[in-house]
Amino acid sequence: MLDAALLDDLAGRVGQRWLATDPADTANHAHDWWPRLLMRRRAGEDLPVPDAVVTPGTRGELVEVVRWCDANDVAIVPFGAGTGVCGGAAPVAGAVTVDLKRLNAIGELDEVSGTIVVEPGVIAQTLEDHLAHRGWTLGHFPSSIHCSTMGGFLAIRSAGQASSFYGKLEDMVVALDVVLADGSLFSTRPVPQSAAGPDLTRLFLGGEGTTGIVAGATLRVWPAPAVAVDRGFLVPDVRTGLDAIRAVMRTGLRPTIVRLYDETDTALVFGGQGLEVPQGCLVIIGCEGDEDVAGFTAGVVRRILGEHGAEDLGPEPGANWRAHRHNMSYRFAEYMKPGGTFGDALMLDTMEVAGTWAVLPGLYDDVRAALSEHADLVLAHFSHVYPEGGSIYFTLGAVNDGDEARALDRYDAAWDAGQRAALAAGGTTSHHHGIGLLRAPYLREELGEVGFDVLRRVKDALDPKGLLNPGKLGLGGGGADGA
Amino acid sequence: MLDAALLDDLAGRVGQRWLATDPADTANHAHDWWPRLLMRRRAGEDLPVPDAVVTPGTRGELVEVVRWCDANDVAIVPFGAGTGVCGGAAPVAGAVTVDLKRLNAIGELDEVSGTIVVEPGVIAQTLEDHLAHRGWTLGHFPSSIHCSTMGGFLAIRSAGQASSFYGKLEDMVVALDVVLADGSLFSTRPVPQSAAGPDLTRLFLGGEGTTGIVAGATLRVWPAPAVAVDRGFLVPDVRTGLDAIRAVMRTGLRPTIVRLYDETDTALVFGGQGLEVPQGCLVIIGCEGDEDVAGFTAGVVRRILGEHGAEDLGPEPGANWRAHRHNMSYRFAEYMKPGGTFGDALMLDTMEVAGTWAVLPGLYDDVRAALSEHADLVLAHFSHVYPEGGSIYFTLGAVNDGDEARALDRYDAAWDAGQRAALAAGGTTSHHHGIGLLRAPYLREELGEVGFDVLRRVKDALDPKGLLNPGKLGLGGGGADGA
Repeated sequence: MLDAALLDDLAGRVGQRWLATDPADTANHAHDWWPRLLMRRRAGEDLPVPDAVVTPGTRGELVEVVRWCDANDVAIVPFGAGTGVCGGAAPVAGAVTVDLKRLNAIGELDEVSGTIVVEPGVIAQTLEDHLAHRGWTLGHFPSSIHCSTMGGFLAIRSAGQASSFYGKLEDMVVALDVVLADGSLFSTRPVPQSAAGPDLTRLFLGGEGTTGIVAGATLRVWPAPAVAVDRGFLVPDVRTGLDAIRAVMRTGLRPTIVRLYDETDTALVFGGQGLEVPQGCLVIIGCEGDEDVAGFTAGVVRRILGEHGAEDLGPEPGANWRAHRHNMSYRFAEYMKPGGTFGDALMLDTMEVAGTWAVLPGLYDDVRAALSEHADLVLAHFSHVYPEGGSIYFTLGAVNDGDEARALDRYDAAWDAGQRAALAAGGTTSHHHGIGLLRAPYLREELGEVGFDVLRRVKDALDPKGLLNPGKLGLGGGGADGA
Repeated sequence: MLDAALLDDLAGRVGQRWLATDPADTANHAHDWWPRLLMRRRAGEDLPVPDAVVTPGTRGELVEVVRWCDANDVAIVPFGAGTGVCGGAAPVAGAVTVDLKRLNAIGELDEVSGTIVVEPGVIAQTLEDHLAHRGWTLGHFPSSIHCSTMGGFLAIRSAGQASSFYGKLEDMVVALDVVLADGSLFSTRPVPQSAAGPDLTRLFLGGEGTTGIVAGATLRVWPAPAVAVDRGFLVPDVRTGLDAIRAVMRTGLRPTIVRLYDETDTALVFGGQGLEVPQGCLVIIGCEGDEDVAGFTAGVVRRILGEHGAEDLGPEPGANWRAHRHNMSYRFAEYMKPGGTFGDALMLDTMEVAGTWAVLPGLYDDVRAALSEHADLVLAHFSHVYPEGGSIYFTLGAVNDGDEARALDRYDAAWDAGQRAALAAGGTTSHHHGIGLLRAPYLREELGEVGFDVLRRVKDALDPKGLLNPGKLGLGGGGADGA
């Protein structure tokens, strides 16, 4: 535990008001939205709280805080909005949680280059609103856009629902500012592409705060599209849907939204609207841009889907999806509260994996089968596609008749089975939620012994004292609780 | 110098035939195509040769060679085809040069995923031929495609002439195999995208062999486009051309080829064909794909260029460019030979830099002015564009009346002035040729003190003995000669 004199000294860096040590104040930082932590809280367990939560108001103060931690050998847990779902912002014994929410400035919009500068505490929807007001868009639309920060999204290599056009967030990064473990600030140049050595921004994107703390970024933005042409289709099965989508991606055109729901998820989508549930799988493809470009792309999509025997459902499925697409994530913590919407011992989570086109059908079958051994309900959609493959987003749920211990056991068993199945099928363990504490054992397996050693060496080189978010990604010790 | 017993031991790893120590045999590895080395050779200087050149025939032999170097504290210089232009493959005193040309297998073409597996010694054109025979393309068309290897291109983050559609080579990497300094093999999983920690492939792409030796890659490929619709335009000046191209990129469509020649380069293009030289700047834009997609994209391009006051020159400029686009690089070493095509004391080189759209016009003016202080001829084209900016490819030349010392002095002065101007204007020092020995001082400036320290720490973590291509990127010692 940090002693009072030390904490007083830390408070001097940011002002007393921005240092919290009372457990009533630090309880908000006792967890992120990793369901396992929420389940433990719901079961009545007292989750450990950080020794202190410090909330710097400027980048200079952030640097001061990190320098102070380095000088005093105190570990640091960076915290955005606390909505990560893998425990990446979970507290560590003896550590200071650094809340980045006050670093929420939106800087210059460069309308010539198409770039904007942001601080890590900016909520993604706030940034979209700021841009929309000026006729621009970042194109990063994760389902949690209303409740999560850009810093968190950058740290875990997030992807939004429009990634088929705009790419993953890491691919929108034109420049990055990072505070290193010793408090020095590393700012890369805003350039479109370079061959000036390795791309060092990639050490921190996906580093989840273990290699440095994201202090800002210059991101690529686009003029807001004039029109969006969405269309729903019904295909006989998952494999036909994947074939059709692959054919669309092979044209070189880029629809913005590409979604394929498996039979169970399709039933939920139609049933949830009180509609008759059709046989088959729903596909939603949205094309955006100027009227001519969006219209042409949508025409090619329609032709290719038709060639694959798809039934054209018109614009309604897309409109319905857009109307509700941000509903779930925002309410997630609510579902997992004591006495939450679905009862007390609900197990509920999502697992996003990815693979090449050749891998995807088997990846879908195997992960689904593995999860189904431990969950009452497993549904999936394919929602981020690339020329060489895509991701699968599984939702898994189980009701446990008030038995929280059983819920936790089933949770652990489902994750272990699902992640091992993903690796065995040739996929990656995570497409856009990251590693945190949850996936640390599977990351190790994914990278292999040599690869994990590369990661560990890089970590040790950049953070020799092991102070940056210890325990996350399976790196460093730090007494991380929660696993 | 390596003693005979050691070299015998090394020969045992690959077979005596594949270890060369006679200077008559190792002279081919005394330089790459860095013009400064070619100029020194031309001036009659005896360039140092490697102590030994070893040419492993399998990945297993490569691993054995690296292990041997690690065990005996011998430095390693990886060597592909030796056509790099920055001294990245220049020998180092006491080091072994590892020639990768026998690791030239082309592996499985996965037509479902759209990926292919390659070894580092494969010549890029060989790979294109292999793919073309099967109806596919990698889309990597550097001007040196006939004479350079995939391993070299990967190590320096190369870009081909069709990068506006296909991206830079680093963005085509689905998986990477790397031999680390201790001889262990690190293979990443072939996945389309991931959030499983930082993208560790990026430590090696752009590492130029200083962090590991690229031993193979899985690359994204595309069905060969059915048609190519090329069109030339004439715009009044560089700035108008940039505005028009930016407007094209903002549509979200992706032409494959985008080239803008400045007035001097335009004069050379037309004059070289015996045509009347027009006022203004030549633009060539090529659109590829299925007939409908290429045709639609070309139509949008034509409309936008027209809106910017461009004169439509029809398909001829594109056809002419395609016919001659690989002529120059292949012959480059010829120009720089004693008694070469343009006389004995020619200074000739290219410098590719990049910047965001807001930076590009000033970057062009400033680098051009800086180079013009030291060169007789400076011409430029813009040939790789992205949504947020692009690159400029300067060619600089000077004739020096047989005075080689003067040629070298002018060379050094031109590079120093050009690189400093690029940094001052907000650009990056290299878009796709890399750093090698040539740009090491400017890389340090580009990354800044903190950033270079990050690079140095990563290097030390991955190569604690400093055996991998020492001196390149300004990393490690190793007594690198040539600067």
